[in-house]
Amino acid sequence: MSNFETIRLEVEDGIATLTLNRPDKLNAFNTQMMQEMIAAFDQTDADDSVRVVIVTGAGRAFCAGADLSAGGATFDYSARGGEDKAARTIEGVQRDGGGLLTLRIYDSLKPVIAAVNGAAVGVGVTMQLAMDIRMASTDARYGFVFSRRGINPEACSSWFLPRLVGVQTALEWCYSGRVFPAQEAHDRGLVRSLHAPEDLLPAARALAREIADNTAPVSIALTRQLIWRMAGASHPMEAHIADSRGIQARGAMPDAKEGVMSFLEKRLPQYPDKVSTDLPDIWDQWSAPKFR
Amino acid sequence: MSNFETIRLEVEDGIATLTLNRPDKLNAFNTQMMQEMIAAFDQTDADDSVRVVIVTGAGRAFCAGADLSAGGATFDYSARGGEDKAARTIEGVQRDGGGLLTLRIYDSLKPVIAAVNGAAVGVGVTMQLAMDIRMASTDARYGFVFSRRGINPEACSSWFLPRLVGVQTALEWCYSGRVFPAQEAHDRGLVRSLHAPEDLLPAARALAREIADNTAPVSIALTRQLIWRMAGASHPMEAHIADSRGIQARGAMPDAKEGVMSFLEKRLPQYPDKVSTDLPDIWDQWSAPKFR
Amino acid sequence: MSNFETIRLEVEDGIATLTLNRPDKLNAFNTQMMQEMIAAFDQTDADDSVRVVIVTGAGRAFCAGADLSAGGATFDYSARGGEDKAARTIEGVQRDGGGLLTLRIYDSLKPVIAAVNGAAVGVGVTMQLAMDIRMASTDARYGFVFSRRGINPEACSSWFLPRLVGVQTALEWCYSGRVFPAQEAHDRGLVRSLHAPEDLLPAARALAREIADNTAPVSIALTRQLIWRMAGASHPMEAHIADSRGIQARGAMPDAKEGVMSFLEKRLPQYPDKVSTDLPDIWDQWSAPKFR
Repeated sequence: MSNFETIRLEVEDGIATLTLNRPDKLNAFNTQMMQEMIAAFDQTDADDSVRVVIVTGAGRAFCAGADLSAGGATFDYSARGGEDKAARTIEGVQRDGGGLLTLRIYDSLKPVIAAVNGAAVGVGVTMQLAMDIRMASTDARYGFVFSRRGINPEACSSWFLPRLVGVQTALEWCYSGRVFPAQEAHDRGLVRSLHAPEDLLPAARALAREIADNTAPVSIALTRQLIWRMAGASHPMEAHIADSRGIQARGAMPDAKEGVMSFLEKRLPQYPDKVSTDLPDIWDQWSAPKFR
Repeated sequence: MSNFETIRLEVEDGIATLTLNRPDKLNAFNTQMMQEMIAAFDQTDADDSVRVVIVTGAGRAFCAGADLSAGGATFDYSARGGEDKAARTIEGVQRDGGGLLTLRIYDSLKPVIAAVNGAAVGVGVTMQLAMDIRMASTDARYGFVFSRRGINPEACSSWFLPRLVGVQTALEWCYSGRVFPAQEAHDRGLVRSLHAPEDLLPAARALAREIADNTAPVSIALTRQLIWRMAGASHPMEAHIADSRGIQARGAMPDAKEGVMSFLEKRLPQYPDKVSTDLPDIWDQWSAPKFR
Repeated sequence: MSNFETIRLEVEDGIATLTLNRPDKLNAFNTQMMQEMIAAFDQTDADDSVRVVIVTGAGRAFCAGADLSAGGATFDYSARGGEDKAARTIEGVQRDGGGLLTLRIYDSLKPVIAAVNGAAVGVGVTMQLAMDIRMASTDARYGFVFSRRGINPEACSSWFLPRLVGVQTALEWCYSGRVFPAQEAHDRGLVRSLHAPEDLLPAARALAREIADNTAPVSIALTRQLIWRMAGASHPMEAHIADSRGIQARGAMPDAKEGVMSFLEKRLPQYPDKVSTDLPDIWDQWSAPKFR
């Protein structure tokens, strides 16, 4: 696919693997990595051959957080800028790069599995919160270190984290800023399952395989929209409005016939509908708020 | 009570038992069952002798999901219709039957306990999400199979499920569409407790009994409204507005005097207030969104 | 600090300890205690030397709930009044005292740890829900007893409780009104950790110490606002809007330079910014709803 420099993107047998690829820097996050990751999700969304995206890190870290090579000026965007400073400044406010990434992942049309091979600190963990399922090596470790760097949680983590682990754990992790082991991340519900280092990617691929082999791509894209959007909705009627449009549209499409008939005939399904051309708009009057 | 054909509704000693009753079809869900279940909840709400509703299934299944006897046209409502097609179509959109049911349960004034005796698949599990407490037989199994049928999660499940098990588990179950055992449903928090098959209904009745014997019916109805509605509210002030009206109204009613005096006198309470006549409206300016 | 009568407030080495102090009444809650607790949080917010607030109870209870000495008239505010009746009545609705307290705690700029030494019943447990982290003695016990007193859950507990333990457990506890042991509170996620009675306060202080010694006070205040407010927000964009303002403001302040440099130099940080004078307003167009 594209000539990325800070990441690799490989597609094999329906599974895209996005690898953070600055191993000598522990895959530290910078503006280029943010831009390339966003471009990669644009590609996986547009490519009907991609059913699931796995995100992992090259070398011994997943992502050690923001690149601190600018020292004390690291987070001083007004002074330091960045190539894309103008592009992401709206009425004097520079949009947080971690948030630009997690908002893009939030809108992904394909499931996203984080395969966390090592340290995931700062934006290295907050970027994962918009992914769907987190699987971790027993070597992984985590840190919401913002309070120890004099800044604040970013990448929309204050919205995602309480929905994943509850308010109490979200606050304790962000207050203390401590780095903690994979076992604690699993016990508190952030991580779905722990694996020996050599078993991590095979386990992530097995789960991706299960999804890819059995389910309708358009159904998966609608499922992803429904659950993430309704996780923030005030009343179940909002789900009913979208649900009903979904069932009405999908029920009349070839996938629904194939889904029921393959089940009744006890055979593997072959779903004809494609995300690129057949995704119905079920979101009457629903829209994301604008940056302001 | 009514002459239902697809369900049974029995009331004994304050506990209503609603039994899905198409055992030869594994209690498969159809339009008639949807209508009869809604009518049953209208009856349990109106009947002051009913303190708690238990929902269970006749035979070996709880509910195996939508009745697939129409084959590939099962979900094609525009082609297939249904007796109530016109009644539930608004400006060209046919409302999802599962959602009509879960929205009715959401508004129930009595606590609802699911006693899940066997397979609960598709709408057989999503209908449970609007119930309050799920107890399961070790024989139960679950499946959010929508992605394997070429449709999408319905019955407002995208709103309910993340609030019960978190976003990560909600996505994994709906992505994979796999059928999984009761133990997994318990471990991930969907099910409150597991029971040997013969112990399930006695355990559900014991919990219903505890509520019926010790608590004020009007207090329970307000509790149900408060917790379900505030689970979707943006700010605790919304709860304070309703709370304050509730305490002001209820504090001056006979139940509150009886509640405190029976406690101080260490005797069982006899609450005089009734849901049918004494339920205060504590919901200033709060209203459910309309279907659109 | 102030001459409180129903509580004690002591500050030592950056940690404020607020002790409910009516031990002969099992620290039963009354109007004066509500007012004094609110005043105490005003003081801890205004005092830059306070980094963390610990709330505990004198004697064998944490707080046994509302003071029932008025008997059957306890909750009849319209008849009984209270010194502050006029002050907290808005257009005929008297605001719930528990809610006035939890809304004040929700706005605290310092982390709040509940160290629950004994019985916590009624408002004795609902007041804890707006605190950040609950640690409990193995002697503690809990009860959401409102349904057994003929009233309804108060202190905004219907908003807080489902976000801490999920809807299913919130409903079961509030329906049954039963008093349950610390172990159940821990198993269901209300309590972060259990401790032998003599270890409780030392453990709470150790966690407070970890926060106080390693983190920037202004970062902690922003973290608290972000996570509590975003726990109720509909879309991650709301977090992105506040995040971005936070990173832009904080990244240019001395704390961020010190945070990065102390990390790179592997030394303890000395954060110069103060909550009283340096807290940026990151909440464009965000405002709490008004009582109505």
